[in-house]
Amino acid sequence: MNSKQPLYQKIAETIKARIASGEYRPGQKIPPIRNLTSSLGVNKATVHKAFEQLKREGLIDNKVGSGSYVRFPEKIYAPSGFFDFRTDYLNERFFPYQQAQSIFNQLFESEKAHALAPTPVEGDPELLRVLSRRYHLPAERMLIISGAQQGLDLVSKVFSAKISESILFEDPTYPGAISLFKARYFVPLQNDGPDLDQLDRSLSTNIQLFYTMPSVHNPTGISYSMVKKEAVAQRAQDHGFYVIEDDYLGELNGRAPRMIDIEPQRTIHIKSFAQTTLAGIRLGLMVVPEDLYAQFIYAKYSSDISSSGLLQKFLREFITLGHYDQHLKKVVKRAAQRRARLAALFAQFPFLTQYPGQSGYSIWCGSALPMPVTDAPWSPGQEFSFSQEFNRYFKLSFMHLDEEEFTEGIAYLQNYLTLARS
Amino acid sequence: MNSKQPLYQKIAETIKARIASGEYRPGQKIPPIRNLTSSLGVNKATVHKAFEQLKREGLIDNKVGSGSYVRFPEKIYAPSGFFDFRTDYLNERFFPYQQAQSIFNQLFESEKAHALAPTPVEGDPELLRVLSRRYHLPAERMLIISGAQQGLDLVSKVFSAKISESILFEDPTYPGAISLFKARYFVPLQNDGPDLDQLDRSLSTNIQLFYTMPSVHNPTGISYSMVKKEAVAQRAQDHGFYVIEDDYLGELNGRAPRMIDIEPQRTIHIKSFAQTTLAGIRLGLMVVPEDLYAQFIYAKYSSDISSSGLLQKFLREFITLGHYDQHLKKVVKRAAQRRARLAALFAQFPFLTQYPGQSGYSIWCGSALPMPVTDAPWSPGQEFSFSQEFNRYFKLSFMHLDEEEFTEGIAYLQNYLTLARS
Repeated sequence: MNSKQPLYQKIAETIKARIASGEYRPGQKIPPIRNLTSSLGVNKATVHKAFEQLKREGLIDNKVGSGSYVRFPEKIYAPSGFFDFRTDYLNERFFPYQQAQSIFNQLFESEKAHALAPTPVEGDPELLRVLSRRYHLPAERMLIISGAQQGLDLVSKVFSAKISESILFEDPTYPGAISLFKARYFVPLQNDGPDLDQLDRSLSTNIQLFYTMPSVHNPTGISYSMVKKEAVAQRAQDHGFYVIEDDYLGELNGRAPRMIDIEPQRTIHIKSFAQTTLAGIRLGLMVVPEDLYAQFIYAKYSSDISSSGLLQKFLREFITLGHYDQHLKKVVKRAAQRRARLAALFAQFPFLTQYPGQSGYSIWCGSALPMPVTDAPWSPGQEFSFSQEFNRYFKLSFMHLDEEEFTEGIAYLQNYLTLARS
Repeated sequence: MNSKQPLYQKIAETIKARIASGEYRPGQKIPPIRNLTSSLGVNKATVHKAFEQLKREGLIDNKVGSGSYVRFPEKIYAPSGFFDFRTDYLNERFFPYQQAQSIFNQLFESEKAHALAPTPVEGDPELLRVLSRRYHLPAERMLIISGAQQGLDLVSKVFSAKISESILFEDPTYPGAISLFKARYFVPLQNDGPDLDQLDRSLSTNIQLFYTMPSVHNPTGISYSMVKKEAVAQRAQDHGFYVIEDDYLGELNGRAPRMIDIEPQRTIHIKSFAQTTLAGIRLGLMVVPEDLYAQFIYAKYSSDISSSGLLQKFLREFITLGHYDQHLKKVVKRAAQRRARLAALFAQFPFLTQYPGQSGYSIWCGSALPMPVTDAPWSPGQEFSFSQEFNRYFKLSFMHLDEEEFTEGIAYLQNYLTLARS
């Protein structure tokens, strides 16, 4: 702490440190001001001022009549009162709902009430076969999960003992993982993957897991080079850690080798279908090493027994009939068009630095000007990192808007950035 | 341990104790025989014999080529090679699938792709309103969960610190709760609820939670008397613990007061829809005390973001259109008919003792003869308790069979029990 800081800022730093360490967890109530005044030995007005600063920085939320809560790592609802470029999901209008309707109808025609039957814990056997063929992954180590977030939750269950002490993250990374695992250890990310020197330094500690998004990284949108993937795989072998490969959008990037292809024995592979289809299709796919399979099956069973059989059957048909491939092609094309339009807009503002080699549904962008947290239309960098250096970054998601909204959004951004510059 | 026991039995007891204590958890691999021989100081043949006994008792399962695993507390698949009276779910044929099909069709007609949109973390707002009215519960403390098991999982997340030291269970109880919470403390159940003297004795320790099924208890099928419910509520107030009211089937029992009606401030209420409709409809309802609500929402979000919006919309329509009530009426009537047929059968075998006052989809039955574990068509008592006294009980579930299977099943039981007697 800087001794010249005003007292309220020191208090704010103390609370920040407690949030960062996991002592105060997201969604948790912060001790009321009157408790903090006595435990920190300062007066009420000072703590109040510290709270106000934390609110401005977006670290805490207020609830009427019930105090202050540690902010969720990711805003679940769009912020009101300004334009929303914060939502990661695909717009519903891009989804071929008539094909979906017809599949559900067919399922009830052919399977009757069995369309709503439960599946085995690991998933619908036919869906497992379809996915195994499609993604070249072994069905016998596969399980269907209720979205990619559940995959992370199962990892936290299987590796429950002191997990936050033994898991390494990219910096920046996905907020849902930071908060779930109470992340403490980070390795800086470069344009082609992690900084290998820093990675080696981190591995001197007792790291058992490395959480990574080697393809369409969140929030930066980069993908690992083959060299970096192989370097990570080599270290996983040498140091005996598992790679959690969060491949939530990797499919958009074609057929680049995945960590599970390079190091199948030590990779826990997680793939989302909610991200590639619609957020309401709460399904994902997980492949785990053989020696952990029984434990993952048990963790899945005790979490929610099994994922919706109806949605699994739907996904099976949606893939088998070729609709999924058609849909993906359209999504990839549309995402490229929107990215190009936004890149052209950003190029008009020299204080913005665009990261190279991005893909996916969002743009990660640096700014030489300080970026406001509370009224920005995008996700501020501090949602993805505890490092100060990312305060001047933001992530702008652009695939949840329909065409009209997107055009309005571009105009809004043009104004917003012009004002920021002046 | 009994000193006259053969050595292999002592080894078996040791392993049993480790399973009971949670040292070896369900789904977990038991250390191979060669490791146990050295750590327990006995030879391979003795450990092998102990393993054989544990297998006969149904405590461990074998996997070809990969050793022995602690048995799941509940069989997920029907046992093969003999009749299945072990599954708790409703038969699919009882479900009005044509009404379901028509609802899904309507949803896509009226909502288009929005039928597959995500919902807020806590659930579809309209479904919450419908459920609030139907069950007389406050919508603002409600969340939709992916089945009742997830409700328990969320409790284990919110009360994560040393939960197995601070949670009390009925004895016997639901195996999914025993294993999830690594249950250690139990209070004996009587025909009208827990033994209050024993309950008071248990409360001298640091109990923060009491897991209970006051209506249609699993496995016994009993329901608490009003006196016992009020006694539990009083103790929750006096000792400051929360009641986890697993009301998975309570709805079948009409409008008896629930714990959440009697003690709303200290009750965590969980209700299943998978049990009352179809196992594939993986939805449940949870109501939690106000001061815990933010933490439960966060636990839900980090578990699976939200439950399937499509299924939620379906359930909303299924209830609103009156189909759910019609369906429940038929289920209650059919369950009563089947229970009566089974009771008449059992009455022919005086070595069987039927528990009074049961409801739900199963019969809990004592036997004066020892009951085989490995080839019985029902769930043996030891799935629901660590106490030896329940080894002579069994739970027979009868609502997953269609009419023809049920008739065959009755004949099978008649033979089976006749053989057991002789």
